[in-house]
Amino acid sequence: MGIMMHKGKRNSITDVPGVTVGHVTLDEKINEEESVCTGVTAILPHGGNWFEQKTPAASFVLNGFGKTAGLIQVDELGVLESPIMLTNTFSVAAVLQGTMDYMLAENPAIGDSTSSLNLLVGECNDSYLNSMRRMAVEPLHAAEAIRTASADFAQGAVGAGKGMICYGVKGGIGSSSRTVDYGDEQFTAGAFVLTNFGRKEEIAIANWLPENTPEQRPDGSVIIVIATDAPLDSRQLKRLAKRAAIGLGRTGTHVHNGSGDIIIAFSTAYTIPHQQQSPFTDLRLLRDDHEVMASLFQGVIESTEEAVYQSLFHAETTVGRMGRVVEKGLFE
Amino acid sequence: MGIMMHKGKRNSITDVPGVTVGHVTLDEKINEEESVCTGVTAILPHGGNWFEQKTPAASFVLNGFGKTAGLIQVDELGVLESPIMLTNTFSVAAVLQGTMDYMLAENPAIGDSTSSLNLLVGECNDSYLNSMRRMAVEPLHAAEAIRTASADFAQGAVGAGKGMICYGVKGGIGSSSRTVDYGDEQFTAGAFVLTNFGRKEEIAIANWLPENTPEQRPDGSVIIVIATDAPLDSRQLKRLAKRAAIGLGRTGTHVHNGSGDIIIAFSTAYTIPHQQQSPFTDLRLLRDDHEVMASLFQGVIESTEEAVYQSLFHAETTVGRMGRVVEKGLFE
Amino acid sequence: MGIMMHKGKRNSITDVPGVTVGHVTLDEKINEEESVCTGVTAILPHGGNWFEQKTPAASFVLNGFGKTAGLIQVDELGVLESPIMLTNTFSVAAVLQGTMDYMLAENPAIGDSTSSLNLLVGECNDSYLNSMRRMAVEPLHAAEAIRTASADFAQGAVGAGKGMICYGVKGGIGSSSRTVDYGDEQFTAGAFVLTNFGRKEEIAIANWLPENTPEQRPDGSVIIVIATDAPLDSRQLKRLAKRAAIGLGRTGTHVHNGSGDIIIAFSTAYTIPHQQQSPFTDLRLLRDDHEVMASLFQGVIESTEEAVYQSLFHAETTVGRMGRVVEKGLFE
Amino acid sequence: MGIMMHKGKRNSITDVPGVTVGHVTLDEKINEEESVCTGVTAILPHGGNWFEQKTPAASFVLNGFGKTAGLIQVDELGVLESPIMLTNTFSVAAVLQGTMDYMLAENPAIGDSTSSLNLLVGECNDSYLNSMRRMAVEPLHAAEAIRTASADFAQGAVGAGKGMICYGVKGGIGSSSRTVDYGDEQFTAGAFVLTNFGRKEEIAIANWLPENTPEQRPDGSVIIVIATDAPLDSRQLKRLAKRAAIGLGRTGTHVHNGSGDIIIAFSTAYTIPHQQQSPFTDLRLLRDDHEVMASLFQGVIESTEEAVYQSLFHAETTVGRMGRVVEKGLFE
Repeated sequence: MGIMMHKGKRNSITDVPGVTVGHVTLDEKINEEESVCTGVTAILPHGGNWFEQKTPAASFVLNGFGKTAGLIQVDELGVLESPIMLTNTFSVAAVLQGTMDYMLAENPAIGDSTSSLNLLVGECNDSYLNSMRRMAVEPLHAAEAIRTASADFAQGAVGAGKGMICYGVKGGIGSSSRTVDYGDEQFTAGAFVLTNFGRKEEIAIANWLPENTPEQRPDGSVIIVIATDAPLDSRQLKRLAKRAAIGLGRTGTHVHNGSGDIIIAFSTAYTIPHQQQSPFTDLRLLRDDHEVMASLFQGVIESTEEAVYQSLFHAETTVGRMGRVVEKGLFE
Repeated sequence: MGIMMHKGKRNSITDVPGVTVGHVTLDEKINEEESVCTGVTAILPHGGNWFEQKTPAASFVLNGFGKTAGLIQVDELGVLESPIMLTNTFSVAAVLQGTMDYMLAENPAIGDSTSSLNLLVGECNDSYLNSMRRMAVEPLHAAEAIRTASADFAQGAVGAGKGMICYGVKGGIGSSSRTVDYGDEQFTAGAFVLTNFGRKEEIAIANWLPENTPEQRPDGSVIIVIATDAPLDSRQLKRLAKRAAIGLGRTGTHVHNGSGDIIIAFSTAYTIPHQQQSPFTDLRLLRDDHEVMASLFQGVIESTEEAVYQSLFHAETTVGRMGRVVEKGLFE
Repeated sequence: MGIMMHKGKRNSITDVPGVTVGHVTLDEKINEEESVCTGVTAILPHGGNWFEQKTPAASFVLNGFGKTAGLIQVDELGVLESPIMLTNTFSVAAVLQGTMDYMLAENPAIGDSTSSLNLLVGECNDSYLNSMRRMAVEPLHAAEAIRTASADFAQGAVGAGKGMICYGVKGGIGSSSRTVDYGDEQFTAGAFVLTNFGRKEEIAIANWLPENTPEQRPDGSVIIVIATDAPLDSRQLKRLAKRAAIGLGRTGTHVHNGSGDIIIAFSTAYTIPHQQQSPFTDLRLLRDDHEVMASLFQGVIESTEEAVYQSLFHAETTVGRMGRVVEKGLFE
Repeated sequence: MGIMMHKGKRNSITDVPGVTVGHVTLDEKINEEESVCTGVTAILPHGGNWFEQKTPAASFVLNGFGKTAGLIQVDELGVLESPIMLTNTFSVAAVLQGTMDYMLAENPAIGDSTSSLNLLVGECNDSYLNSMRRMAVEPLHAAEAIRTASADFAQGAVGAGKGMICYGVKGGIGSSSRTVDYGDEQFTAGAFVLTNFGRKEEIAIANWLPENTPEQRPDGSVIIVIATDAPLDSRQLKRLAKRAAIGLGRTGTHVHNGSGDIIIAFSTAYTIPHQQQSPFTDLRLLRDDHEVMASLFQGVIESTEEAVYQSLFHAETTVGRMGRVVEKGLFE
């Protein structure tokens, strides 16, 4: 049967049906020295109850200089049971708290008859523009990001991406997708990135940099989220996550020592119910050696690469603490 | 040269010079239904500035049904840069926040000129006795646990161990140590456990159970911390961590699906400075094939096994939410 | 529904239907200095074509001082496509070659239209009794071990176990099993061990050692194979493999530096065909949180522990190179 | 202090002092159907006794559809104790055997008083051109590749690279290096590749493909070896290995399901003696956060990328079994 791959309709992770994204952006000049320039982003794997209907998932740590919480349980059980939350490095606790509050309100049994709850919060360091030590993100911002999630979401300097810098220019949120047509069926892989990495001289595309880029600053990070509606299990999703690292690498990064480069992949093709009568789970999984899988690998690589550039395309020049300016660097 | 192994002076992780432990215990009956029966425990790797003088460390996840935060960076860089904090499952966020607050106050450069900060918080689920959904632990409790740490610390139903249950009876905090004499030199390995795992029929020692044990409840967890003053790097510390799993197994556990069984090991023999003129770090490491290493492996196994039992020896009968009682189960 | 666990009929890995084991034992005194005292063992996951019908599998490396070949692909794809072969450390090449020869003869397409073939060979070091440098194992011995496999197989000082030493006495091949009755259904987990590890003072059971044990010798190893007919995927089989490490630890070992302690687990509940029209694989998997899984965890721990002791029960006093004698140490 | 990076003198892995490479190439038409078109390549980490002076090492498996032997022990102990051998998929056994023979002849104590020996053999599948089922590689070829190793070695369709195909054209052996000048000191990172992967449409550089490329064939593989004279331990070398994956990804590969993409990295800056009086090893390691490390990361990425292209530059059009021709595809 013929196979064809093309960009998804929105060219976004939300081309994977059911996936939505919400942002809360915090942007306030406090005084000459201090500015809040940060935010929270929520990626929802589906429109139902994430705890009751768990999502198959996996992760790959390309470079572990990062503080992402929640990956241990994803690795053990192969599922997500909460949204994927993103924020700045010092707000992991607030976002964990806020997501916990939200989830407990929605699920009265958790922590009582039902045992526990695993949350997933990723982060990048926005301290060049954001007065990160102020920890302006509050728990309620997490719930707000979750509640406002939709298939149409902003990219660039928004949400967790508000204060991020990538390849010396303004980075932040980016997304892209690829859809594989196989006979009557369609499978989509979407990439979503929070970009905060790379020195300007590393970027793989030429003739684009503004005159002024920020002075030397600590290595940044990148969080990549891959969604697909292809029926994959956690072992296979880890394979997608590794391909996302290849897509990231295509943009030129040297994957610096201090860069927390972390990839999370999930499938929406099926869910694992939290409780069930039957001792068995019935699954239909895509074969590893099938040509659709090869196309998904390609789609993950290409959409991750493009998502990085999309984060630059969409990110507008941003002014942060101490009057620092990070310029828009890439124009479509 | 002759080798001899014996228990450390305190038979505790604090036999490793410089290591201290602090607890905050929360114990309050709110009403007929609700009780706060939980706490926070801090294990400090040394008496200096943990961020400026990083501690070689590693982890091993025996069963990843757990929410421990901070292990990704430990795995990548092979160092700790903060205390190891323990609490209940729903208080990871509060303890992360409180430890962050403490560390930022001590280190004005973090998040400004200096890049970031990795914190390490482990947890077990105390929801049988503790009204965990109340999230009574507050950020300040983390700082208090850190500030009150000492070489003499309580075991049993204290700190993070207040509400824990192990093998159907009262569990909590336990510790034990072994010292290896090698010529004029001494090397100590100490185990510290937060026990909240196992069904009563699993325990490896006989004739000890009280008549009444709690009704069926969710699988628990165990956090094990291994400290040593032997000069080991992260690769070698991971080997110690795996031996701790063997010691844990000796006590009878089946390592249940829902048990987050996580081991963290660190060495106090040297530190890695956060900043340094020289591009090089000079290290003196113990050889993997040396007989002292074999004794350390043995010492970790034995002290972990004993630490589990110590947590039961020291834990007094505890009353928690809904009038639930968990009895002391093991008497020396 | 009620659950009950008991030993399998044979108390052997071959209680898992379809699993068979074959040995070739080599035992010859060459001269006063040299003796061949070694062999090959084959564990066949099912009675069909292993390449055409791949077996879900996983591994766990407790201590990686070992030369087992083939685990990388098992980890990536989650399947076995050949028997599990065991031999001495210096005969891995011969057994790889012989198994390759056998598999290529059975599968004319491999290496031509069909891409490649992954083989799995584990080893322990029998150089105390066996003149290992002679490399007496030949490729044909691998085929012979495969061809003679049956559900009834010898334990003790046979096959790959011929020259092995465990806890200072004669070790070798051991097996045990546990069957879980759940309503009308039965699920069996069987353990198979090649024991060549541990110092005599480590063993967890008392009053059993002969007067004479071998002089100090290098650290040994142990290979553990877990089979089950419960429907598990590779992620879940890795969880069983970790529990086997717990069962091993119960026997007293310190998991020495030089011990290659490697566990391979597979399920016979289903196979993955090498080629297939459909792009999908349909699976029915046991839930991680089901009580049958808890019983399987227990069954793996218990049967691994017992298999180690069975290897000692069955191993007769053996004379090897240089007139060295290793005595039977454990009597039922 | 200033840092500058440039290509090494030979632009080869042998710019790392002490590293040498040897090939044995087998090229014979047997009949109209069958041809031997394969070989063996040996990479020697230093000019001394590799077993007595072990080399710090690590690996990273980008995609584990591969049969590389020996990585388990490298991961556990962090050292190599033998050359790195490369050949075709079905000749791993022969090369293991031949390398064993060579090493045992050089080291009479191995397998007698000294415990064991870990060998490292990587492979790619050359069955499009080579009659791989004939298994023409013999153990002696391994010794010959070792004995003939030198700092000046051929690239392209030689040694293990004789029958390999990359991006639809002739692949094989390639190498490149980068040297970092830091004050008076120099540190070199060299990449060595055996390329047998990728479809023609994937390659990242344009305008280069010949008219005729082979019909569809199974996914290939790539083995990458990174050497450096910077003082790194195994944890750090794994970080280099991950950057090599990024360099590989830059050339365009989708990292196919059936591609065994495996990276081994070692340092020649120091060795770990097999036996030693002292219980301690003294090390001087490069700091992870030093700018020289950042340059090494960059150097590994760039030299891996270039090594892939070098393998194509050097590989001449090759005729293999069944009259199949694979054309040279890339011209400098």
